[in-house]
Amino acid sequence: MINRILILGTGLIGASTGLALRASGFTGEIAGFDASASELDTAQSSGAIDVFARSRADALDFARTADVILLAVPVLAILDWMQLLAPVLNDGAANQGDGPAQLLTDVGSTKLQITEKARSLFPNASPQASRARFLPGHPMAGKESGGAALAEPTLFRDAIWLFTPLDPQSEPSPLEQEWRALVAGFGARTLDLAPQRHDELCAWVSHLPQMLSTALSALLEDTFGADPKSRDEIAAIGGRALRETTRLGASPYSMWRDVALSNTEPIAATLLALEQRLQHLRENLRTHELREEFLLANHFRSRR
Amino acid sequence: MINRILILGTGLIGASTGLALRASGFTGEIAGFDASASELDTAQSSGAIDVFARSRADALDFARTADVILLAVPVLAILDWMQLLAPVLNDGAANQGDGPAQLLTDVGSTKLQITEKARSLFPNASPQASRARFLPGHPMAGKESGGAALAEPTLFRDAIWLFTPLDPQSEPSPLEQEWRALVAGFGARTLDLAPQRHDELCAWVSHLPQMLSTALSALLEDTFGADPKSRDEIAAIGGRALRETTRLGASPYSMWRDVALSNTEPIAATLLALEQRLQHLRENLRTHELREEFLLANHFRSRR
Repeated sequence: MINRILILGTGLIGASTGLALRASGFTGEIAGFDASASELDTAQSSGAIDVFARSRADALDFARTADVILLAVPVLAILDWMQLLAPVLNDGAANQGDGPAQLLTDVGSTKLQITEKARSLFPNASPQASRARFLPGHPMAGKESGGAALAEPTLFRDAIWLFTPLDPQSEPSPLEQEWRALVAGFGARTLDLAPQRHDELCAWVSHLPQMLSTALSALLEDTFGADPKSRDEIAAIGGRALRETTRLGASPYSMWRDVALSNTEPIAATLLALEQRLQHLRENLRTHELREEFLLANHFRSRR
Repeated sequence: MINRILILGTGLIGASTGLALRASGFTGEIAGFDASASELDTAQSSGAIDVFARSRADALDFARTADVILLAVPVLAILDWMQLLAPVLNDGAANQGDGPAQLLTDVGSTKLQITEKARSLFPNASPQASRARFLPGHPMAGKESGGAALAEPTLFRDAIWLFTPLDPQSEPSPLEQEWRALVAGFGARTLDLAPQRHDELCAWVSHLPQMLSTALSALLEDTFGADPKSRDEIAAIGGRALRETTRLGASPYSMWRDVALSNTEPIAATLLALEQRLQHLRENLRTHELREEFLLANHFRSRR
């Protein structure tokens, strides 16, 4: 049923999805659009997309006839695209049959705002059953740097691809089932979560590690960056521990700004909890409490 | 000149040193001692040591005739061994020639207390030039778990092996030069630092990442550990970011207790600085300050 896929945003995740579709045997057409002509060019050169739209208006035209539209841009841009796409997809021009003829899905890092907006713009329970459906998604894959040049067909292998369906109780449409099967074909496991739970869990396992790595890297830059001798010493002495805890310091603000704006409260709560935990540890560097912290931490790791 | 090496503590670092000595062509005798009979047994089975002492008293006897004695135990145990070894090594029994006949060196994670104690117990400027000399050392290598079973001859390859010499201005003794050459033979680079500078820099690049990883792991265990469903979700969703920032949560308290006790002030200072930085970031999740933090962090990482 899925013959035409449109990828809006051909950066790391969008282009990797195109490559993964091809690698897993998808033979339909993959169209793409990106605000950056060079990202678009890289995506096409690598075979991630076959054809591309030359403008937003052009992309909306492609959208009219696509079976699946994948929004692979940062969260606020996804919300903008949803607004632009709603009138185009809901005019029913593409709908020939009985079920919903188009599936809109995304890869945004936070899901509550996107899922709520989808409920209002693309209601499942619409009397016009043929309207486009929205399936909020989030592949837990990425790199500390973005861009189509880093895209890989295997990026989602053994990763988890989360969904936060608008109506978890209802049977997925055939189109949604087909998209889920394509995702499984990338080697990813899928898991459904409520959007609020998604955002809380991701604050812990993804956003907090990111903010932590950014804060530590920024602190080290402030402390040692101005002095070449100190910089060299830090570079010489720092091993795997430093490398791993600062790796995400390379992540781009452009993407994380949207995460911070769309998941502020959960992220702030995890940061505050970590600040308090670090203070507790600092005040107990010479007491038996330090042992309790290490034992708890050992316990956490022993299950991983 | 170096024909007999005694390794006191045949855990990960001690046994890896024995294996690295063999792999780099050292043909003399390697003796070992460990308070744990099973660590000692593992070290001998793997070829890290040839012979072993059966008790502390036996180890002190081995020490009388060793050319190099490597203290490869946690910091407080190193300080204890120094106290035990001083009268044995300084009685001159082993000294036949003109220069210092024995070299005592260590692999302790903090260097100020060890170097100060060495200055008092093994003074370079002693009128008895033939007395044993002490070269404080610290290979920046390790794993989140310890033990002889994880030892590898290549553990120090491309790592840095730090020294904090008692008298940085004076020419190293021939024995010290030979030990440095053996270390270089492991594939490690060597770098000399003042002991206080060593402890401050290591607080930043090693102890802070460790405490951070322990605090985050302990916090996650407290938050999710009691609920199997949450544990499963965290395990399913957590990717590389979580894995890397909590990896050191597996580190043993036994080793880090000594680091915390012997480097309390520098570690507390780095923890406090990070707490304040996280607070700053938390209070600016929705402002342009967040961009500044990401740019500083990007800058730090761009040089690595």
